[in-house]
Amino acid sequence: MARAHSPNTQARRRRRIDPRRIGASPVAILTPPDARPTRIRTHVYDGAHHEIREGCAPPVEGAFRWVEIAGLADADAIAAAARALGLSDLAVAEIFQTDQRPQTEIDGALVQTFIRAPLGGPPLAGEQLCLVLGPGFALSVSESGHELFAPVLRRLEAGTGRIRSDPAYLFYALIDATLDAWFPLLERYGDAMERIEEAILRSPDHGMIGDIHQLRRDLLNMRRALWPLRDALAPLTREDSDRIPPWMRPYMRDLSDHAFQALDMVELYREVSQGLIDLHMSALSNRMNEVMKVLTIIATLFIPMTFIAGVYGMNFDRASPWNMPELGWRYGYPFALGLMGASAAAMIWLFRRHGWLGGGKGAPPGPDKPTGD
Amino acid sequence: MARAHSPNTQARRRRRIDPRRIGASPVAILTPPDARPTRIRTHVYDGAHHEIREGCAPPVEGAFRWVEIAGLADADAIAAAARALGLSDLAVAEIFQTDQRPQTEIDGALVQTFIRAPLGGPPLAGEQLCLVLGPGFALSVSESGHELFAPVLRRLEAGTGRIRSDPAYLFYALIDATLDAWFPLLERYGDAMERIEEAILRSPDHGMIGDIHQLRRDLLNMRRALWPLRDALAPLTREDSDRIPPWMRPYMRDLSDHAFQALDMVELYREVSQGLIDLHMSALSNRMNEVMKVLTIIATLFIPMTFIAGVYGMNFDRASPWNMPELGWRYGYPFALGLMGASAAAMIWLFRRHGWLGGGKGAPPGPDKPTGD
Amino acid sequence: MARAHSPNTQARRRRRIDPRRIGASPVAILTPPDARPTRIRTHVYDGAHHEIREGCAPPVEGAFRWVEIAGLADADAIAAAARALGLSDLAVAEIFQTDQRPQTEIDGALVQTFIRAPLGGPPLAGEQLCLVLGPGFALSVSESGHELFAPVLRRLEAGTGRIRSDPAYLFYALIDATLDAWFPLLERYGDAMERIEEAILRSPDHGMIGDIHQLRRDLLNMRRALWPLRDALAPLTREDSDRIPPWMRPYMRDLSDHAFQALDMVELYREVSQGLIDLHMSALSNRMNEVMKVLTIIATLFIPMTFIAGVYGMNFDRASPWNMPELGWRYGYPFALGLMGASAAAMIWLFRRHGWLGGGKGAPPGPDKPTGD
Amino acid sequence: MARAHSPNTQARRRRRIDPRRIGASPVAILTPPDARPTRIRTHVYDGAHHEIREGCAPPVEGAFRWVEIAGLADADAIAAAARALGLSDLAVAEIFQTDQRPQTEIDGALVQTFIRAPLGGPPLAGEQLCLVLGPGFALSVSESGHELFAPVLRRLEAGTGRIRSDPAYLFYALIDATLDAWFPLLERYGDAMERIEEAILRSPDHGMIGDIHQLRRDLLNMRRALWPLRDALAPLTREDSDRIPPWMRPYMRDLSDHAFQALDMVELYREVSQGLIDLHMSALSNRMNEVMKVLTIIATLFIPMTFIAGVYGMNFDRASPWNMPELGWRYGYPFALGLMGASAAAMIWLFRRHGWLGGGKGAPPGPDKPTGD
Amino acid sequence: MARAHSPNTQARRRRRIDPRRIGASPVAILTPPDARPTRIRTHVYDGAHHEIREGCAPPVEGAFRWVEIAGLADADAIAAAARALGLSDLAVAEIFQTDQRPQTEIDGALVQTFIRAPLGGPPLAGEQLCLVLGPGFALSVSESGHELFAPVLRRLEAGTGRIRSDPAYLFYALIDATLDAWFPLLERYGDAMERIEEAILRSPDHGMIGDIHQLRRDLLNMRRALWPLRDALAPLTREDSDRIPPWMRPYMRDLSDHAFQALDMVELYREVSQGLIDLHMSALSNRMNEVMKVLTIIATLFIPMTFIAGVYGMNFDRASPWNMPELGWRYGYPFALGLMGASAAAMIWLFRRHGWLGGGKGAPPGPDKPTGD
Ligand SMILES: [Mg+2]
Ligand SMILES: [Mg+2]
Ligand SMILES: [Mg+2]
Ligand SMILES: [Mg+2]
Ligand SMILES: [Mg+2]
Ligand SMILES: [Mg+2]
Ligand SMILES: [Mg+2]
Ligand SMILES: [Mg+2]
Ligand SMILES: [Mg+2]
Ligand SMILES: [Mg+2]
Ligand SMILES: [Mg+2]
Ligand SMILES: [Mg+2]
Ligand SMILES: [Mg+2]
Ligand SMILES: [Mg+2]
Ligand SMILES: [Mg+2]
Ligand SMILES: [Mg+2]
Ligand SMILES: [Mg+2]
Ligand SMILES: [Mg+2]
Ligand SMILES: [Mg+2]
Ligand SMILES: [Mg+2]
Ligand SMILES: [Mg+2]
Ligand SMILES: [Mg+2]
Ligand SMILES: [Mg+2]
Ligand SMILES: [Mg+2]
Ligand SMILES: [Mg+2]
Ligand SMILES: [Mg+2]
Ligand SMILES: [Mg+2]
Ligand SMILES: [Mg+2]
Ligand SMILES: [Mg+2]
Ligand SMILES: [Mg+2]
Ligand SMILES: [Mg+2]
Repeated sequence: MARAHSPNTQARRRRRIDPRRIGASPVAILTPPDARPTRIRTHVYDGAHHEIREGCAPPVEGAFRWVEIAGLADADAIAAAARALGLSDLAVAEIFQTDQRPQTEIDGALVQTFIRAPLGGPPLAGEQLCLVLGPGFALSVSESGHELFAPVLRRLEAGTGRIRSDPAYLFYALIDATLDAWFPLLERYGDAMERIEEAILRSPDHGMIGDIHQLRRDLLNMRRALWPLRDALAPLTREDSDRIPPWMRPYMRDLSDHAFQALDMVELYREVSQGLIDLHMSALSNRMNEVMKVLTIIATLFIPMTFIAGVYGMNFDRASPWNMPELGWRYGYPFALGLMGASAAAMIWLFRRHGWLGGGKGAPPGPDKPTGD
Repeated sequence: MARAHSPNTQARRRRRIDPRRIGASPVAILTPPDARPTRIRTHVYDGAHHEIREGCAPPVEGAFRWVEIAGLADADAIAAAARALGLSDLAVAEIFQTDQRPQTEIDGALVQTFIRAPLGGPPLAGEQLCLVLGPGFALSVSESGHELFAPVLRRLEAGTGRIRSDPAYLFYALIDATLDAWFPLLERYGDAMERIEEAILRSPDHGMIGDIHQLRRDLLNMRRALWPLRDALAPLTREDSDRIPPWMRPYMRDLSDHAFQALDMVELYREVSQGLIDLHMSALSNRMNEVMKVLTIIATLFIPMTFIAGVYGMNFDRASPWNMPELGWRYGYPFALGLMGASAAAMIWLFRRHGWLGGGKGAPPGPDKPTGD
Repeated sequence: MARAHSPNTQARRRRRIDPRRIGASPVAILTPPDARPTRIRTHVYDGAHHEIREGCAPPVEGAFRWVEIAGLADADAIAAAARALGLSDLAVAEIFQTDQRPQTEIDGALVQTFIRAPLGGPPLAGEQLCLVLGPGFALSVSESGHELFAPVLRRLEAGTGRIRSDPAYLFYALIDATLDAWFPLLERYGDAMERIEEAILRSPDHGMIGDIHQLRRDLLNMRRALWPLRDALAPLTREDSDRIPPWMRPYMRDLSDHAFQALDMVELYREVSQGLIDLHMSALSNRMNEVMKVLTIIATLFIPMTFIAGVYGMNFDRASPWNMPELGWRYGYPFALGLMGASAAAMIWLFRRHGWLGGGKGAPPGPDKPTGD
Repeated sequence: MARAHSPNTQARRRRRIDPRRIGASPVAILTPPDARPTRIRTHVYDGAHHEIREGCAPPVEGAFRWVEIAGLADADAIAAAARALGLSDLAVAEIFQTDQRPQTEIDGALVQTFIRAPLGGPPLAGEQLCLVLGPGFALSVSESGHELFAPVLRRLEAGTGRIRSDPAYLFYALIDATLDAWFPLLERYGDAMERIEEAILRSPDHGMIGDIHQLRRDLLNMRRALWPLRDALAPLTREDSDRIPPWMRPYMRDLSDHAFQALDMVELYREVSQGLIDLHMSALSNRMNEVMKVLTIIATLFIPMTFIAGVYGMNFDRASPWNMPELGWRYGYPFALGLMGASAAAMIWLFRRHGWLGGGKGAPPGPDKPTGD
Repeated sequence: MARAHSPNTQARRRRRIDPRRIGASPVAILTPPDARPTRIRTHVYDGAHHEIREGCAPPVEGAFRWVEIAGLADADAIAAAARALGLSDLAVAEIFQTDQRPQTEIDGALVQTFIRAPLGGPPLAGEQLCLVLGPGFALSVSESGHELFAPVLRRLEAGTGRIRSDPAYLFYALIDATLDAWFPLLERYGDAMERIEEAILRSPDHGMIGDIHQLRRDLLNMRRALWPLRDALAPLTREDSDRIPPWMRPYMRDLSDHAFQALDMVELYREVSQGLIDLHMSALSNRMNEVMKVLTIIATLFIPMTFIAGVYGMNFDRASPWNMPELGWRYGYPFALGLMGASAAAMIWLFRRHGWLGGGKGAPPGPDKPTGD
């Protein structure tokens, strides 16, 4: 886990609030310390064509634009592009605050949505995406420019379906691709928990509880990323919104469904991971029982026997007929051994009666196998 | 449990998200990898007649249709039938996404409801059902074509009651039959928990906690299937819905009641299963107490006696009158045995005083037996 | 508890869903397997008179009717009476479904309320009551015909107060009597928990956790019976209801208050019972500590002494001046005993320092006694 | 704690439902068994004068009345006074039901509020207050006539502020004084928990868990008393209420604030008390670890040494050169002692390596001390 | 921790309710016992100028005022200034009640907001801030006059951005600076928990649970400070508010976002801290297992060997051929040693089979390392 820890620590270091921000103007632009190099390009497209231009291209009559920004290092270029598209000072400044709560802000003709995209895990890594829908254009700003949007780009290039019909549809497709990316990550967490579960049932080990703790912390961070989507996606599905064409409502509702589904899985996994902790504590407790039983069996078996041996090792003066006459018996030694054997047999009988040795008193019942139904 | 694990693993493998879906068009049709062969048939009926035709039959003047699809393998045939009935591209594509949240989508004249049907358990197996109500027809799409709808079919063939009155009633009857199927499954989980409870009280065993964990996981999945029904059934009971005739409202409300009742049982069972974990931990802890008590009684009984035996086994030079004069006493051995007996008696008295041996200090009180009330 | 288990098992067997109901018509009447013989009688009353007739009497000009049905065995007679009073097929069928969620259905001029009445406990026994308010009549259907309504009947016979003023008041009085019956039952659960608490503090015993588990299960079932009353009673207090005369609103609100109060007690008892589990686990853990302390004190006291005895029991050749010269000392034996005593004294000093013997290091603080305030 | 238990038991006995109430008329007046003697007096006041008259004084032109009733024993006198002030039969009967949920009933021109007042604790003691606001008068009914209203009375006598301006203000001042009384009680619970926390950290003791359990039960009862205030105070702050003058709204909202604040403290203390249970269990577990470590160190130190002594105490025939030649060695005894010493040294090295003896492997980190910030 | 405890105790002592307040007039001004000296100054500013005057300066035509009060000792001066600005008696009195729930009161033209500002931690220290927005002025009252507002003051002096545009913006900037200050504090708590986590994984120690308990108590107090902000900030973002200019809505919504974000972190940390308790209990339990295993291995290894030595230390009369013939064997001693060795070997084999010694039965699985994804 040693190496795996470092990305996590990085993730936390990024979350660390920038001390320059305390009390600062809300429109001050503060580039994150670890920002990646900026790359800006514009997809200009209509039903028939699709073309990629470097930088933030100006509007083209009859065509739509997707301005795609990756990397936050060049704050000036990003701010210039964003202002050219009509974003307010506050909206521009928020692009650079990379651990915001997922949210949608509707400001005049612009819809600005912040969501979190998964980058990998466990341990969980993620980043903030800013998506803006405006008249005739969509804008996307990602921290790392990763491969998340590649399938959308392929669809845009192929021109099939509705992908070139309206920037609102592209805006939807980008959010949809981001949400889709959470599911395989969640699967990986489910698999990790299953492996831990099997390992606990095989043989509990203290390191596991640290692993479970790590998974739970990641699941908590996922919930923090997914829970606010309820409120962030609601404005997009609302009947009275005039920025999203009415025919897109079922698509937007579908986004909400998927966000809820991902959240359901996070909650399921949180409860399962809590169950793993119970399972682990029970396994530890059980193993302790087992250890103690072995000690108790051995000790209680031998302690009385050792006592008998001790008695006949005493050095009382054999001159008195009252002192240890057994030592002079012809069968004194066999008698002593028999005494020891009897004590052991009594102990073993006691252990059997308590079910500590041999079969116990009945097989534990498993859940029913379904029979036919 | 070894064999029982495989269906469960299957269930999970099916839930695994299709990597082709990430970033794909929302209207792309992706057949699930383990889809069963498709069978399409149409029930054409009116108050007087009922007839079954293969495939998706065209509308018949004055008659209603129930298009029944089982198995998702033949995506083309299913998509053609669904489009012929007026479903949108998105609605068609969702039929093939077999782990959706239960939901109802109202799109123009069509009502599309997704619910989960139980197939068996424990371990839990289930599938997604898609039910559509449209003008003059109902459509059902199931993954496995199991026997769930058989009683509804018998009622349709018999023609008694209101089953042939309106496709909305048939739509209701199909959902009702699906919800009904959850109750015997829940009973089986209740029975399984009772058997585990009795086994814990009889004799705790580490395997049980794994069984409880498995049941809890299934109950969590049931909640995931049943909880969204609140929202999925609400549009069907709403006053302003014009797709459901007003006289059907009490029926639809009855569906909601039953969904809540099933959910209440899931919550009850979840809490009871949590109680089983407490019970189990307490039983383990109690058994440990018992084991330790036996060890302690035996050890503290014999350790002082063994010490006395050790003392009189020392080899000090009897020449000095100060050295072990007891060894020369006429009643030295009886004296030593008496010393040992006294030490044992003191220990036993101590154990009795602490209630570790014999009757203890009072019978534990059970809950009252009701007397007459 | 052996005998006490049987009513509980009965209760569960009754809850078991009737397999005939799966997929059946919602208006199919299915008599419960253990239904009691049916008895139908009608109270005909006005301000001045009160008369009891066998069966479901026809309406009498200027008089009100209370049709009282007990026992569900004779489905035909009950259904005939209910239909004569105007109940729909669905409403009639639900009378025979004896584990419904508490609910109120308003259908035209009829108000139909299902609630659960307590029969006894612990272990909890209960039954479903169906109460219907219609024009000029009230209908009550109980499974067992128990004594719950006796005080209401006495008031009706006495004719005091408003009991003869309107069937809505009688309808209210019947629900009120049912809710009242929950409180003494809850008191009994509170008493049972207090007895368990005192017993745990006196001396913990493994059986207690089973008793607590049983109480918790009953409390969960009570919550299941009482929680839905929020929704079931709300339609009766609503301003726009025209089936309940306005002057009765405070009475109906009082019903809600009492339902909430019972529910508050259930929640309180659930938390207290959870506390009992903590108390019990702590008591077990504490007793284990005590057991281990005794073992440790005895063992660590005697083990070094036994070792010393063992040393002087060795048989080294006294010819060498290096071999066990102590054995030849004049005061060798007192020296050895002194060594043993010193080791024991050291141990006892150690135990005292850790507070394992004698007074410890300070009295534990109890909650303050209120002084005057 | 023995004596402290009795008030608590009394409190519970009072809560016990009166069996006469089951099925009784809702307007039946049932005096509580332990009611105190009744005292009725009336404060007649206007801006300039304040006068106290015995009994329920009739209205005086141009003056306001505060009818103050303490003690419920004389049901007839109380009922007569209440009916003279316009209370309905139901409202009168509820005065005598002394464990009602806190609530506000608005009936025509009358506002009737029930709240719970603290009398002392731990263990918690409380009583029900009934406050009524009517045209030109306020009515207060308390069970014990305690000193709660003394400061309000002093303000009324002094005539400063708005206390004589309107009965609504007096009604407010009485509720405010009652809510104020909860805070010092809550402080006492906070102090009690802090004392327990310090005691646990000093040395855990089984009795503490009983004390915590008792505090938790009281906190649950406080929540039961305070939680319903949300709903009980809401009608008093509502804009459309015409019984409270508009200028009093900020005062009424302030009441809500204080109720929420008290509830926040109860919730805080409940969580802290749960933390105390964790702390206690951890302390017990830790002490067990400590006890076991001592036993293990002593036992594993001496068991091998005792074994060696045992070996050289065997009586094999020295005639054979193979039998125990060590006994004949010149340095046999020092060799045996050396063997024992080596075994002890090995054990001590092992204990040190596991950190069971001496300094361990690193100091535990405490939370940071704030440095200057 | 000893010194760190005192600020915490102070914090608690301040929370202690003032006994003078019970039943007192709501407009009575009660200076907190530990109030700091008062300092009042006024910032008079417009777009072009900024000037600081001592005391509460009168309004200046065309300019705005920020009246800044620090320290509550001089109640008369503060009350005079506040009344001069138009605050009601109740609003003035609340300034001196320093543990109010965060809240916003809108009274005529005035908006009065109470929030809590962090001063440091762990252990947590905080204070109440009162911020008032009125026509042409903003008022701030802090208990300690700390450095929280320094960055805002610098912006006001610099005159950049909108800081001089409207008192509503200044009012916003003051709340924003206060909220900003919570984040670095939260980071410190996150760091503290991480250090504890690492320490637990390294070596559990009883003191840690006390530290966790302390952190949890602080987190609960933070939740108490942050949770009510939901309601306190809502009136500031509402569309129909005419005290906040419409262009400021996004700024006010941003405040809500940040409050939610801080609250999310508190909830996250509370769950993580709960996980630390599980981790700690598991570590203690694990260490106990380890201790017991060592004891059991040593004891069960040596107890049978010691028994054998005891047997051959018995003193039976060698005259009888039945008595201890082994003692006379030529290889009796090697035989006895061999017997001991065999018993030890059997024990070691048993321990290996149970995985108590050496490698165990399989490496525990960690969460996956992400591979490329
Ligand atoms: Mg700021
Ligand atoms: Mg999707
Ligand atoms: Mg970590
Ligand atoms: Mg995040
Ligand atoms: Mg979908
Ligand atoms: Mg959908
Ligand atoms: Mg827990
Ligand atoms: Mg997609
Ligand atoms: Mg049904
Ligand atoms: Mg599993
Ligand atoms: Mg599912
Ligand atoms: Mg029903
Ligand atoms: Mg119904
Ligand atoms: Mg059915
Ligand atoms: Mg009642
Ligand atoms: Mg049971
Ligand atoms: Mg029930
Ligand atoms: Mg009442
Ligand atoms: Mg009431
Ligand atoms: Mg009653
Ligand atoms: Mg107050
Ligand atoms: Mg108690
Ligand atoms: Mg109470
Ligand atoms: Mg206040
Ligand atoms: Mg206020
Ligand atoms: Mg006050
Ligand atoms: Mg900010
Ligand atoms: Mg503390
Ligand atoms: Mg606070
Ligand atoms: Mg922001
Ligand atoms: Mg924002």
